[in-house]
Amino acid sequence: MLKEALLHIADNPFAFAVGSNELKVRLRAKKEDVARCSLLHSDRYQSEGRESGMALSKVAWDELYDYFEGIIPSDTKRVRYVFLLEGTAGDHLWYGEKGIAVNREGAGYFQFAYITEQDLFTIPDWVHDGIVYQIFPERFYNGDPKNDPPGTLDWDEPLTDWKTYYGGDLAGIEQKLPYLEGLGINVIYMTPVFTSTTNHKYDTTDYYSIDPQFGDLDTVKSLVKEAHSRGIRIIFDAVFNHCGDTFFAFQDVLKNGESSKYADWFFIDSFPVVQRPKTNYETFANSVFSMPKLNTKNPEVREYLLQVARYWIEETGIDGWRLDVANEVDHEFWRAFRKVVKEANPEAVIIGEVWHDSRAWLRGDQFDGVMNYLFKEALNGFFAKQNIGVRTFNNLLTHSRMIYSDQANAAMFNLIDSHDTERFLTACTKGGWGWNEEKQAEGRMKLAAFFQLTYPGMPMIYYGDEVGMEGENDPYCRKPMVWEKELRNESMLDHYRSIISLRKEHPELARGSYETWLEDELKNTYGYIRTYKDQASGLLINNSPKTQVVKLSFPWKQEGDTVTDLITGKKYAVSPDTTVHIDAYGYMVFK
Amino acid sequence: MLKEALLHIADNPFAFAVGSNELKVRLRAKKEDVARCSLLHSDRYQSEGRESGMALSKVAWDELYDYFEGIIPSDTKRVRYVFLLEGTAGDHLWYGEKGIAVNREGAGYFQFAYITEQDLFTIPDWVHDGIVYQIFPERFYNGDPKNDPPGTLDWDEPLTDWKTYYGGDLAGIEQKLPYLEGLGINVIYMTPVFTSTTNHKYDTTDYYSIDPQFGDLDTVKSLVKEAHSRGIRIIFDAVFNHCGDTFFAFQDVLKNGESSKYADWFFIDSFPVVQRPKTNYETFANSVFSMPKLNTKNPEVREYLLQVARYWIEETGIDGWRLDVANEVDHEFWRAFRKVVKEANPEAVIIGEVWHDSRAWLRGDQFDGVMNYLFKEALNGFFAKQNIGVRTFNNLLTHSRMIYSDQANAAMFNLIDSHDTERFLTACTKGGWGWNEEKQAEGRMKLAAFFQLTYPGMPMIYYGDEVGMEGENDPYCRKPMVWEKELRNESMLDHYRSIISLRKEHPELARGSYETWLEDELKNTYGYIRTYKDQASGLLINNSPKTQVVKLSFPWKQEGDTVTDLITGKKYAVSPDTTVHIDAYGYMVFK
Repeated sequence: MLKEALLHIADNPFAFAVGSNELKVRLRAKKEDVARCSLLHSDRYQSEGRESGMALSKVAWDELYDYFEGIIPSDTKRVRYVFLLEGTAGDHLWYGEKGIAVNREGAGYFQFAYITEQDLFTIPDWVHDGIVYQIFPERFYNGDPKNDPPGTLDWDEPLTDWKTYYGGDLAGIEQKLPYLEGLGINVIYMTPVFTSTTNHKYDTTDYYSIDPQFGDLDTVKSLVKEAHSRGIRIIFDAVFNHCGDTFFAFQDVLKNGESSKYADWFFIDSFPVVQRPKTNYETFANSVFSMPKLNTKNPEVREYLLQVARYWIEETGIDGWRLDVANEVDHEFWRAFRKVVKEANPEAVIIGEVWHDSRAWLRGDQFDGVMNYLFKEALNGFFAKQNIGVRTFNNLLTHSRMIYSDQANAAMFNLIDSHDTERFLTACTKGGWGWNEEKQAEGRMKLAAFFQLTYPGMPMIYYGDEVGMEGENDPYCRKPMVWEKELRNESMLDHYRSIISLRKEHPELARGSYETWLEDELKNTYGYIRTYKDQASGLLINNSPKTQVVKLSFPWKQEGDTVTDLITGKKYAVSPDTTVHIDAYGYMVFK
Repeated sequence: MLKEALLHIADNPFAFAVGSNELKVRLRAKKEDVARCSLLHSDRYQSEGRESGMALSKVAWDELYDYFEGIIPSDTKRVRYVFLLEGTAGDHLWYGEKGIAVNREGAGYFQFAYITEQDLFTIPDWVHDGIVYQIFPERFYNGDPKNDPPGTLDWDEPLTDWKTYYGGDLAGIEQKLPYLEGLGINVIYMTPVFTSTTNHKYDTTDYYSIDPQFGDLDTVKSLVKEAHSRGIRIIFDAVFNHCGDTFFAFQDVLKNGESSKYADWFFIDSFPVVQRPKTNYETFANSVFSMPKLNTKNPEVREYLLQVARYWIEETGIDGWRLDVANEVDHEFWRAFRKVVKEANPEAVIIGEVWHDSRAWLRGDQFDGVMNYLFKEALNGFFAKQNIGVRTFNNLLTHSRMIYSDQANAAMFNLIDSHDTERFLTACTKGGWGWNEEKQAEGRMKLAAFFQLTYPGMPMIYYGDEVGMEGENDPYCRKPMVWEKELRNESMLDHYRSIISLRKEHPELARGSYETWLEDELKNTYGYIRTYKDQASGLLINNSPKTQVVKLSFPWKQEGDTVTDLITGKKYAVSPDTTVHIDAYGYMVFK
């Protein structure tokens, strides 16, 4: 066995409690190097020689590694364990905290000293069934023309720049709840709705008021109430890294300079404050003068923002927060934020915007999940750009799961696009095989959506994707929602409705484990198995422009059993020779 | 290059801020596989192609891996970087968050999104110069016979069991401060001093009173004041995992059962509470009925213990806490504890008792350091038991440093024994070469102490080690301190005094970086270089029972320069052929 590839640390994400008496452990080894992985475990005060044994399962693999997992039960919550590995060459190694050794004593023990309730990473149960719809309110629906800003464009006027308004508002969202309920989603995440000077509202003027262009406190209350009555939860966007330069505190600093009592609310290099051509204060990104960075080390700022978080939950009943630019705000703030939010509503969810490896925020003390851009990258490469094959796709997905605990993986916002990226359908037109382009792009978009809706974590649909909207990066990914039946892609909408229904009908598709079933690089077909309690489904996708014939085994079935493709209703006998035909960009679900 | 061996994560301990504008990064690679390691870095919002380059240095190696480190400067605190590796075979690889690739784009970037002040891991500056002396107060010195408990033994009576008393107390410690000052230590860590029913006092009866056998509040205040006047800091022992069964709250539960208002202060399975033969409540270790585990999830318990932590700092001026059984208490509690302690005294230090990999507590949000049992294991194997050679010794030390940040490494309590282990000198009699046993053991003990006193982190001397005390595990490692000159090992004491002086005179020995200089497995000689600013010393130790002749290069010197052995004063010309003779169990310091 390749010792250099072995990795385990008695800490998240390699060891994490999944219950008060259950420790999940994960071991990484060189790919196809370890035939069997088991461990011995006991209470950490137990005398040696009284350990229990258990086998681990290979749960995933990527380019370089295999991953093994198991759940160690512990009555006492004090866990000590050592791995025993059998190599594919028949060699044996022990692996513990002291190192890798041919004898058990030389390996020592890993220790997970105590599973405490307080450190348990708990997420609301509803998250496991969450299907999210992301709305950019200014562009979703104009429910109340009275609140339109001057110069509001007609809904069907072409979008040509960043600064235009179309009149979308909260009343519009509420009026379209029947549509969303019909679509089947059960969570709405809205980009910011507080008073600000832009259409995107990421430059907050007032954290305590709804932008008059969108509505007011009552509009939100009404929206939340109506959404809840339909089983739909509402997530707000917390822009706490920075405010707008119109925020009262920054205005005070602009006016009063160093003597402002808000001078320490920001990171100001020198006074007087200069905004152009280059700021002398820290901002979002590089000198975006309209977005001064907030100093969350200042207890007043912390308290101000924490009270904002609490206020909107308590006042309107929203179900959680998505956190803008979350990785540029300190961990300490987010830990306090989690306490405030979960105290205000234990069922609230917290999702950070972090585009990269997010493990530092996902150990249970800060966020529940993040905007899963690692997931997006995998789907974008495989389905849209088609610049990676089946194996790389699987490798990227494996990596994206194996750096996190189960809890974090379940609480991901699994997106394929957002208000900050080109639309996925547009990306689909840029890759591929060069013929029958338009149809292909649609097929690949549908296949990506199918995958998104059958993968662990919360699928997040960006408004309009479900009706075939296209658009390059900002501002073109933020076009007004297409409501006219003649203009929207009804086939796409039907597709979304049916795969959302599928996920809801089969709990394993939402809550189940994920196991790679089939990787056929040449045929560009990929299979995966989702298992939850006594339910299992095998899913097969064909990411190629032609029908493929695939030989399948069904490890969760016995020979002689029958499996049914839930998509077509067609039945297949389980035998060593079972083959199926799968359409170009087709998908099948065997149960 | 062996891809499977490459490891970097943009999080502690692979990436950690060492200043507001400095990010230290660490990369792990297969041993002797990477010839050169460099990186490109920029602000994370910078457009590509405008990165700066920098080289990393190989700073350490262990059995399987080499470790490279560098400090990335960042004006904006928002860091993005990608490694470029040149293999010893001349091959090149890029390594970033996306993976390992032959081209830069394929590797992507690691991101350390923002260095915040709040998350900076800061330790008090004095810690870098700390030399700790651990005292078990009941056995150090009887300064006030009036407070002796009934049945107190004479100081020179042989220790025969766990429960005896010898009358040591705080007045005794104060009276012996001149001795400790003369020894040269500047920190005292005392095992618990609060009222309890045992001589070790790990079963707290009252967190707010000093055990009358030890003294009272005034005795502590006097001790702290007198110690401070001599430049000696005082660390208390916080036993917060459990209390004694005589603690008022547990007594109330014993008396009032389920209706006690303290019922939730503990983990009680059923009522009435049963203590024997097996408890129906959680305890320290396995059913130690006299030590019920405290429920730190209960806000009242948390607040009670946090106030204890604050009280003793504010009331007596102590300089920090050592935390008993720290890894069985929740992280959330320790985060709150850090805030309280550092607020009460920003110069206070926090040291956890964790015998294992402690990275989950050492990211800057909980402890400063831990009782460094990984260090002890390495020294025990190499110097005492002699069951590991030079290379394994170096491997274990490297591993123990590379799992932590610089800050945590600097704040370690580097022990070779404690009240929970056999005495190091006793361990030394159990290994070795079988001739001239007693003298050898002493030589090896002295050599271990030399190494301990010239290694990064705070050396911690267990009371009596410096006068040659011996003793098997508890209770025999807790014998009364030997004060009679005729009984103590004056040579050992002189040795400790001189190596403590050495550490104090040469800042690189306390504050410097650590680099392995020489590993000679056959001669059992080992060298290491400590560098701090413009000061550097090369240290050489001979862990064999005979004189060794060693050829040395002095990479921090030029050919033709002279180096002086600080131990003997002897000078050596630096040349390609410089050889030195080093005595059996000898040590040399070249500067």
